[in-house]
Amino acid sequence: MTRAPSPVGTAAASTSYLLENVAKILSVDRSKEIADSVAILTSAKKLFVYGVGRSGLAARAFAMRMVQLGLDCYFIGETITPVVGDGDAVLIVSNTGSTMSAIQVANIARRVGAKVISVTGHPASKLAHASNVVLLIHGNGDATQARLAPLGTLFEAATVLLLDGIVAQVMERLGQTEADMRGRHAIMV
Amino acid sequence: MTRAPSPVGTAAASTSYLLENVAKILSVDRSKEIADSVAILTSAKKLFVYGVGRSGLAARAFAMRMVQLGLDCYFIGETITPVVGDGDAVLIVSNTGSTMSAIQVANIARRVGAKVISVTGHPASKLAHASNVVLLIHGNGDATQARLAPLGTLFEAATVLLLDGIVAQVMERLGQTEADMRGRHAIMV
Amino acid sequence: MTRAPSPVGTAAASTSYLLENVAKILSVDRSKEIADSVAILTSAKKLFVYGVGRSGLAARAFAMRMVQLGLDCYFIGETITPVVGDGDAVLIVSNTGSTMSAIQVANIARRVGAKVISVTGHPASKLAHASNVVLLIHGNGDATQARLAPLGTLFEAATVLLLDGIVAQVMERLGQTEADMRGRHAIMV
Amino acid sequence: MTRAPSPVGTAAASTSYLLENVAKILSVDRSKEIADSVAILTSAKKLFVYGVGRSGLAARAFAMRMVQLGLDCYFIGETITPVVGDGDAVLIVSNTGSTMSAIQVANIARRVGAKVISVTGHPASKLAHASNVVLLIHGNGDATQARLAPLGTLFEAATVLLLDGIVAQVMERLGQTEADMRGRHAIMV
Repeated sequence: MTRAPSPVGTAAASTSYLLENVAKILSVDRSKEIADSVAILTSAKKLFVYGVGRSGLAARAFAMRMVQLGLDCYFIGETITPVVGDGDAVLIVSNTGSTMSAIQVANIARRVGAKVISVTGHPASKLAHASNVVLLIHGNGDATQARLAPLGTLFEAATVLLLDGIVAQVMERLGQTEADMRGRHAIMV
Repeated sequence: MTRAPSPVGTAAASTSYLLENVAKILSVDRSKEIADSVAILTSAKKLFVYGVGRSGLAARAFAMRMVQLGLDCYFIGETITPVVGDGDAVLIVSNTGSTMSAIQVANIARRVGAKVISVTGHPASKLAHASNVVLLIHGNGDATQARLAPLGTLFEAATVLLLDGIVAQVMERLGQTEADMRGRHAIMV
Repeated sequence: MTRAPSPVGTAAASTSYLLENVAKILSVDRSKEIADSVAILTSAKKLFVYGVGRSGLAARAFAMRMVQLGLDCYFIGETITPVVGDGDAVLIVSNTGSTMSAIQVANIARRVGAKVISVTGHPASKLAHASNVVLLIHGNGDATQARLAPLGTLFEAATVLLLDGIVAQVMERLGQTEADMRGRHAIMV
Repeated sequence: MTRAPSPVGTAAASTSYLLENVAKILSVDRSKEIADSVAILTSAKKLFVYGVGRSGLAARAFAMRMVQLGLDCYFIGETITPVVGDGDAVLIVSNTGSTMSAIQVANIARRVGAKVISVTGHPASKLAHASNVVLLIHGNGDATQARLAPLGTLFEAATVLLLDGIVAQVMERLGQTEADMRGRHAIMV
């Protein structure tokens, strides 16, 4: 006799599912793409990040760390966004790789001579094609995905952890300490 | 002879560190607090979420799912925020539990008869004291934390996964499917 | 002998220029378009507003008042944006009427059966063509415009005042008082 | 026989009311305060702006122009906000001058050696007291204010035009042209 999972258990089952599948996704060797990304991020004149919806939130979380690491980094679409130019770099997060504004940002960036790094679930997408470096987050949904990690949840969780890993590597490359980062922490009222 | 970790390896080391420590943090039994949270979230008239910095991003990611689950949910501080009232619920994310605006939101909410759920790293904080339910995220930083997960990174990653777990449980409680959620997905241009 | 305007005088000259030219722009009879807009805004199931850059800020300012008037109103692109549907209305602000995302929002809205009101400087734009009601803000730049009201400043200032006028008319139509609106004022921390 | 104003007429009456009263408010000589503000804005290392609600939108509109004028300007509370330091300047918009976070931002700014410019309706407020320069926007509400310009509408409209005037003066001081500003216009997708 089967029974439905208890309401209490579903949250725990979901986090376990996410931890297990994010681990699987991130176990793929991306050392070359990460090294290329870190090289671009640490040599660009200015950094820009972009994404819509929950992908945009993951991108913003990354941007905050770049600022704390002393880099000039902006989120496209917020109040303060200088113009993208030659020698800059743009990191774009989009699961489908087909969000129109994400593609447009990538194309504008390439046209002016900026480098594009994309985090996407679709290597054949227009966004991926417009990118200098593609960080692929590919998770095959199984039977429980729709129930335990609906919509893009798995992609988004993996992106958050992948980008936090890149933060650590940029930090090391720049010789920054946690104390340095704390010293650049924005006013939080 | 020891050597510094290769630049490439640091990102992978960081994500491993995060996965391992988030798993440890989330392995603590929170079934009662989660059940209480889900009960509050699914019975409130309106939901509000709040947080500043990266904690605010985790809160926003949660709010987007609540809207897709058909609940009236708002992020305090954005353009569109109705007034909080009796019978509403507010979920606040703050690692320290001492961010002034977070405490103020909690106090205002309690005064008008709204329930407060907090996600915090400090159970003795003013925010925790003002809360009806405290979801504690407690991770002792070890020697590598400052290098692999600087500042609040571990708290934030654990919060994202904990809240995604709660999403799955709210989804189940409300009898919602992934298709229902997709049907409420905002325009993404 | 001519001399450059004193630094102090330029700000005053600019505000005078704006006041005079906004007055001229808003003196054109828009009573039919305003009545149509108010009818749409007060009969829609849900309201959405959209705009990018400073046009988006004017749109947000309008949305806040709609919420204070008791209407369900959302800014497209923020955390909390339900799906647009049949019977809803969307107000879009775009000077050129050719911003790609603005046109896309208008087209999606029309496709699902929502009404579109646009505030634009270009009556022949794609945005205007996709709209049920066009609120035209047309100001011919003269010799001093570039110096005293650079870029879209005149359009934006006129939009702010036009939309505040529409707020007053919606307020009257709904029989709302200032006290009613204050009672719906969001938490401001 | 009196009759209620026609629904159509209320919007026009409101914009007339705003134009007339904004003109009156801005006719007060602020040349010294404006000159002081422009001197601070153009000599600061970095600029920050802050405000909540509709005041915050007016502040954001100003910040966008500062960026287009080539200054390093940030909105406190958005994703990208570097730390405020000695030699920086903060412009804060708050009608009451008593919004807690606005006061906190001002106090933090002063403590680290940054200059504070405030736009406020209350010269005796805590915010005004914490400011190096106060741009006072003082409009006595008359009998029709509550109906034609509810809540802070008049303050906000006057602030938008006052700040656009200051933009023109900063532009002149820096020798910037409209074309220079267009060249720094952010990507608008």
